[in-house]
Amino acid sequence: MISMTTDRFDATPRTRVKRLPDRGSYDRALVHAILDEGIICHVGITVEGQPFVLPMAYARRGDALLLHGSSASRLLKSLAGGIHACVTVTHLDGLVIARSTFHHSMNYRSVVALGTATPILDPERKLQALADLVEHLVPGRGPDARPPNDQEMKATTILDFPLTEVSAKVRSGPPGDEPEDLALPHWAGVIPMTTQYGHPEAAPDLSAKGPIPPYLIEYRRTRS
Amino acid sequence: MISMTTDRFDATPRTRVKRLPDRGSYDRALVHAILDEGIICHVGITVEGQPFVLPMAYARRGDALLLHGSSASRLLKSLAGGIHACVTVTHLDGLVIARSTFHHSMNYRSVVALGTATPILDPERKLQALADLVEHLVPGRGPDARPPNDQEMKATTILDFPLTEVSAKVRSGPPGDEPEDLALPHWAGVIPMTTQYGHPEAAPDLSAKGPIPPYLIEYRRTRS
Repeated sequence: MISMTTDRFDATPRTRVKRLPDRGSYDRALVHAILDEGIICHVGITVEGQPFVLPMAYARRGDALLLHGSSASRLLKSLAGGIHACVTVTHLDGLVIARSTFHHSMNYRSVVALGTATPILDPERKLQALADLVEHLVPGRGPDARPPNDQEMKATTILDFPLTEVSAKVRSGPPGDEPEDLALPHWAGVIPMTTQYGHPEAAPDLSAKGPIPPYLIEYRRTRS
Repeated sequence: MISMTTDRFDATPRTRVKRLPDRGSYDRALVHAILDEGIICHVGITVEGQPFVLPMAYARRGDALLLHGSSASRLLKSLAGGIHACVTVTHLDGLVIARSTFHHSMNYRSVVALGTATPILDPERKLQALADLVEHLVPGRGPDARPPNDQEMKATTILDFPLTEVSAKVRSGPPGDEPEDLALPHWAGVIPMTTQYGHPEAAPDLSAKGPIPPYLIEYRRTRS
């Protein structure tokens, strides 16, 4: 089935946001924006009845995620075998400090995607996928590093994880205290949270002459 | 079985770090430190063969995690039913920029805990657990908020998730380039990543007089 590109993903019984549905969204642009800001996802698989959740680097390419890791990893092998998986990306944006203990909360943006992955085996497509991954993780780095050799390509598994069953969930803004609590003497508001990217630190054995490449100094700006 | 408190968790076949085992650890102090620095975990459960991974607030209390959420949430209900779960906490510490594409990596600290949760039902224990959660998430806030009423306590589920099968994984330091790549002209090093807590932003409807409480201004320092 070829799905038409629309501005929304279809909500399915498994991805429909049930709790606080007004926080849920299937908006394609929102899902893409949340995914594009992230660097790691948490991937869930089930092995012999036991769920495992592991962090992984990823990139979005159109309506799919690229996942990558060592070909020797059990997680990668399991995923490549086509088992059911869940990929979740979460950004924490703030701690919500309410007048009541109950209404303390967090501001966040998350995406939950259900599906199965397929390994990218064709050498050219795999090399392109790796380039896309590098460009997502460190924009500008691709041409400024030694490309992978055959052995390294073999040691790397890259998976294509189509975004089909996917939902976003967002909480933002001030606390939602009860009307009768508004006059209480407790401070209320939000402590904002952001990810800070620091100044690049050179490797102790760096012999390359010249300044830190601009795309690394600019990293913070390109990221968020 | 009563387990003695030792300085290490037992590695089990399910928690033994197989890939790059030198990055794995079962050291109790390290596991505790990683957990204490975090605010959200990613919880994995399996429903009808499909894994789901969702972010949740948590706190550590001794060798257990406290997980909490709405009593109406499917995740909380499933967890309270005692199904197999996986709780993962990840801190990203840096982007590792290597001379070769292949050795690009991330510095991180993560904990993966396998087990089952039990709801805390006893009202006094539950109230204490909620206080512990608040103290972990916003140290000092507990006494400075309206306590939960009976209805709010009913609407909140708090789970006890014992840390039994648990492992930590850590990567730190500069890139691990191949010896023959060290002389390449590419810059190499680490872009450090930290979580930044900003200045508290007051709710638009704040009527409470007085300054922002010191424990909120000091939040950044108490957190990391």
